[in-house]
Amino acid sequence: MIIVLKKGADGRKVEELKKSLIERGLKLHLSEGLDTTLIGLIGDTTELQEDQFEALEVVESVKRIKEPYKKANRSMHPADTVIDVCGRKIGGGNFQVIAGPCSVETREQMIEVAEDVKRSGAGLLRGGAFKPRTSPYSFQGLGDEGLKLLLEAKKQTGLPIVTEIMRLGHLDLFEDVDVIQVGTRNMQNFELLKELGKLKKTILLKRGMANTLDELLMSAEYIMAGGNENVILCERGIRTFETSMRNTLDISAIPMLKKKTHLPVIIDPSHAAGIRFMVEPLTMAAIAAGADGVMIEVHNNPEKALCDGMQSLTPAMFDDIMQKVKKTTEFFGKVM
Amino acid sequence: MIIVLKKGADGRKVEELKKSLIERGLKLHLSEGLDTTLIGLIGDTTELQEDQFEALEVVESVKRIKEPYKKANRSMHPADTVIDVCGRKIGGGNFQVIAGPCSVETREQMIEVAEDVKRSGAGLLRGGAFKPRTSPYSFQGLGDEGLKLLLEAKKQTGLPIVTEIMRLGHLDLFEDVDVIQVGTRNMQNFELLKELGKLKKTILLKRGMANTLDELLMSAEYIMAGGNENVILCERGIRTFETSMRNTLDISAIPMLKKKTHLPVIIDPSHAAGIRFMVEPLTMAAIAAGADGVMIEVHNNPEKALCDGMQSLTPAMFDDIMQKVKKTTEFFGKVM
Amino acid sequence: MIIVLKKGADGRKVEELKKSLIERGLKLHLSEGLDTTLIGLIGDTTELQEDQFEALEVVESVKRIKEPYKKANRSMHPADTVIDVCGRKIGGGNFQVIAGPCSVETREQMIEVAEDVKRSGAGLLRGGAFKPRTSPYSFQGLGDEGLKLLLEAKKQTGLPIVTEIMRLGHLDLFEDVDVIQVGTRNMQNFELLKELGKLKKTILLKRGMANTLDELLMSAEYIMAGGNENVILCERGIRTFETSMRNTLDISAIPMLKKKTHLPVIIDPSHAAGIRFMVEPLTMAAIAAGADGVMIEVHNNPEKALCDGMQSLTPAMFDDIMQKVKKTTEFFGKVM
Amino acid sequence: MIIVLKKGADGRKVEELKKSLIERGLKLHLSEGLDTTLIGLIGDTTELQEDQFEALEVVESVKRIKEPYKKANRSMHPADTVIDVCGRKIGGGNFQVIAGPCSVETREQMIEVAEDVKRSGAGLLRGGAFKPRTSPYSFQGLGDEGLKLLLEAKKQTGLPIVTEIMRLGHLDLFEDVDVIQVGTRNMQNFELLKELGKLKKTILLKRGMANTLDELLMSAEYIMAGGNENVILCERGIRTFETSMRNTLDISAIPMLKKKTHLPVIIDPSHAAGIRFMVEPLTMAAIAAGADGVMIEVHNNPEKALCDGMQSLTPAMFDDIMQKVKKTTEFFGKVM
Repeated sequence: MIIVLKKGADGRKVEELKKSLIERGLKLHLSEGLDTTLIGLIGDTTELQEDQFEALEVVESVKRIKEPYKKANRSMHPADTVIDVCGRKIGGGNFQVIAGPCSVETREQMIEVAEDVKRSGAGLLRGGAFKPRTSPYSFQGLGDEGLKLLLEAKKQTGLPIVTEIMRLGHLDLFEDVDVIQVGTRNMQNFELLKELGKLKKTILLKRGMANTLDELLMSAEYIMAGGNENVILCERGIRTFETSMRNTLDISAIPMLKKKTHLPVIIDPSHAAGIRFMVEPLTMAAIAAGADGVMIEVHNNPEKALCDGMQSLTPAMFDDIMQKVKKTTEFFGKVM
Repeated sequence: MIIVLKKGADGRKVEELKKSLIERGLKLHLSEGLDTTLIGLIGDTTELQEDQFEALEVVESVKRIKEPYKKANRSMHPADTVIDVCGRKIGGGNFQVIAGPCSVETREQMIEVAEDVKRSGAGLLRGGAFKPRTSPYSFQGLGDEGLKLLLEAKKQTGLPIVTEIMRLGHLDLFEDVDVIQVGTRNMQNFELLKELGKLKKTILLKRGMANTLDELLMSAEYIMAGGNENVILCERGIRTFETSMRNTLDISAIPMLKKKTHLPVIIDPSHAAGIRFMVEPLTMAAIAAGADGVMIEVHNNPEKALCDGMQSLTPAMFDDIMQKVKKTTEFFGKVM
Repeated sequence: MIIVLKKGADGRKVEELKKSLIERGLKLHLSEGLDTTLIGLIGDTTELQEDQFEALEVVESVKRIKEPYKKANRSMHPADTVIDVCGRKIGGGNFQVIAGPCSVETREQMIEVAEDVKRSGAGLLRGGAFKPRTSPYSFQGLGDEGLKLLLEAKKQTGLPIVTEIMRLGHLDLFEDVDVIQVGTRNMQNFELLKELGKLKKTILLKRGMANTLDELLMSAEYIMAGGNENVILCERGIRTFETSMRNTLDISAIPMLKKKTHLPVIIDPSHAAGIRFMVEPLTMAAIAAGADGVMIEVHNNPEKALCDGMQSLTPAMFDDIMQKVKKTTEFFGKVM
Repeated sequence: MIIVLKKGADGRKVEELKKSLIERGLKLHLSEGLDTTLIGLIGDTTELQEDQFEALEVVESVKRIKEPYKKANRSMHPADTVIDVCGRKIGGGNFQVIAGPCSVETREQMIEVAEDVKRSGAGLLRGGAFKPRTSPYSFQGLGDEGLKLLLEAKKQTGLPIVTEIMRLGHLDLFEDVDVIQVGTRNMQNFELLKELGKLKKTILLKRGMANTLDELLMSAEYIMAGGNENVILCERGIRTFETSMRNTLDISAIPMLKKKTHLPVIIDPSHAAGIRFMVEPLTMAAIAAGADGVMIEVHNNPEKALCDGMQSLTPAMFDDIMQKVKKTTEFFGKVM
């Protein structure tokens, strides 16, 4: 971290600042220019905040040199993390497809979709029991009843399941869930992240729709700092000025996250686009850019779906895409 | 709501759609163009989702005509809502200043700041006991200890208090809190909103940093639909491409929200700008644009603040601004 | 287009509006709801502006149903447009790589890079003679001297050339240029677009960094309406809140543009990311998502480049990527 | 400027870099940390580009300390610039209202509006002769015929005029224009800016709809570097994710620009909001935040306006606002 001092800063206050920095165990390196004086901080600056120093009268600005995350940082952990969910590996060259309906609706729907996506080659089953909906008047999910149906589908097919948590109080209900999803609106629900850090279960952390990659990594760091290093990152489209699709898929997030972190990165093309016909090209782009997996919404009857029908694929469409996913991951040297 | 049908849509499927709409109690109005057929829906469309219809094979697109919120809608409730917090009125021509430190740090700090801001004319006292911090390594607030200090400051000064909730499990601790704040990262924490809807306490709902005004109103609607109509909306800056300030204050949100809703609207200039010198001009702009209040961070020693020191005012700076606030609200016809 | 009337709109004014619409040759279709009356306009609405009607006292809002572009619209021209530049085909299954330095610097540099990229398989040569630079103090390009060097490189290698125009007055200098590029900052320089519409040359139109896809198509429409239908669209990254890369590549623009228009779509991964290591994964993603080409910056000595060295590849890196591009385009069924 | 070297950077290459920096006349200051080495550059870094260094193999990143603009920088010119247009002063405590129709349509319209806005107290007259329109099928302005009508209105009323230039070739036509406006889409049309830098006329430079404040200042610097220091900056709303208004007025741009530069700053509330009812509150907010003027669209018959009728005020509405503008500028200590 570099602290840029104001021109003509009060010498006594500068000395105070330097003293307080040294007391934190940092070494200082001064650089005096014609009209700028810099203090370079040498040592562990992870726990420092830029704005702590920017508040000081003598400080002009603060520039961070090293990333504020440690456990998620690739420089601390050069090899790819490989997450194993009941034998399904994600990361380090292993690719997984997570598929299933946006929301769990009925027993028939859940079992039918689960069997369909398994047959087509999906490695994990998704389904929403608790649904974050913009409107209080929309279908809010079946709740614990939905979780039970999801667990039943797991039993029937052997597919490990992924589902979203929306409330700490529900944590007990998630005991048999294999992967707990933190949705885009909860990426900075720090109280939730702290509790998930105490588990050993895999956490699928979705990027907030207007959060930077560094913020995503800081949220992963919350979970990892608590002791749970089983985190999968998920890019699901960000909010921009473009209106012809629901969100803008940030495909560059894949290579950039791969550089910054050792954690696996997957893509959710269904939510990114919000429109059925874009799921295939975005899935192919994700594989080509180096993603470790994709999460795709599939519904046995998208026209009757209680949620997100517009972006859901039929089992037949999904099966068609899966044939291409198999060939494309192989072409790009991934193992499914 | 208007449903635009695809050119050459299958007649049988269109009939099914029409039948299902009529079963929901809606009246239909058909309009056939050269190559476009529209179905206008007449009746209560609040509970309909655009994407439910966009998923259908026969549908080209869906256009919403009426807003999806009811209780927050000014058309349902033309008069301004006036919120009364222990005798302090907000809305309907009444203006309030909420002031205090970003986070509660010590007993001395809290009492000192509380007495200072009271003397300068603040109507309510703010202070964070539970703090949402991007980094797990940053100061996370004093927690319930902080809440106690805040309540002590309330007792000492008589100022009603505003503080943020971050976890449903803490709700019991908030019994003596006058206004519960929902922070920007929790604006779409729907489980939290639902529980707050069961209270009678005033809720200060901050706009998410990348949420539209309609989404803010839908979150207010969650609280109101639960039975709690005491909601104050707060614009605190949105996330844009501009990097010279922390966030971009959306000043137009004031007149636009005033048109859409009857709820009071306040501004948080401290978080919007993130820099001390901008608090005064943004406060003046907020009053001029018609806000019902402002929330300002004040710290007895900003240089030592554990959080957001860069944007905090000293009690003397705050006192200076308050003199201007009093004159300016009077000039614009508001009562303080 | 649908005009939504205000509740209780003055009947006489509504009649005036209806009369004026009929005079424009439109048929009207009225739909009266409980508290909303809609006027559906049947006929050619391309020349109508939403805001023309929104200005009226009796109008609540206006919803456009059909796109405001005609010549660029796929519905008017279902087959892919194939652009032929001196025998190099772009679009309709044909893929081209455009490569070369950000700016033309010296004769040696230009000839060397041209021969290198040709050897590696590039189909067209790029190079900037006139450079749009944010700072007046930065290198502004060699100007017409640069153009001459570019033409010399064309002569030497036989590669058709692509270069950017920044000023109408320069048009004469571009006589032997094969593809004229309109840069991101000029996408809505309508006077320039109008003049380019009078040429027969191929225009490479880059998306403005904060322009929607519909606006990009309207700019293409300016050129096409003038009579020049040889337009290639180029997505080069959009401006968002993310700061870890220069711009956010909107990969979804490929399938979405392919749906909206028949024009070829290429990607500029160098400018999108602004960082060398991301060029390869973004190029692969572009091919996988269905792009008709890519434009890549190559410099014989990136460390000495006068512009954009950070994102330029060395000829060796480019050659390596080209081997992958050849295999990948073949895998995805494109012809290079 | 600070150059952060990569860990383990090749010593010989670092020496080369240092040598080349010294040859540019800079002094270097080295700071070696545990695993980071920094080079501080002392001297004039205005002409250096961050990315020039970021391209180097040995460089990790580059941090700019000083702004890249000189002539527009308040640190070089602490006093406010006061622009005088035919006796109307803008800046340094002087406030002006520029008013008139979006586009010049007829002689009657222009004269009528000019007389109306003069009577109400406007200091300058605006009107568009050349109009930048998104669609080639929209009304494009009357062109030089429009300019003549505008000049006639000037003659009739004595009001100096402001109008937009869209093409360098038109420059001759602007000889009698008092203030030349550079529109939002041309803020980075650097060829245009360079030519305007050769004039002595006042330039009204509108912020690009997705340009940062630093980019706006760099565009002003283009004009000033050419020798023309008569530049007025105009904030007119930026592009964000919010859809309930045309653009998001960045009110914070006023105090931030005032800190960064000595140039006058005005606001265009009509284009920012795009809706008539918001013009008044945004005008009041602009005054309160410290703007040096506003530019407001007025039409004698907004319902018949060929452009932007939705945001245009009638002369009566404008007169009403002007009464408030006079009192409010006085209240905030500005001279009109």
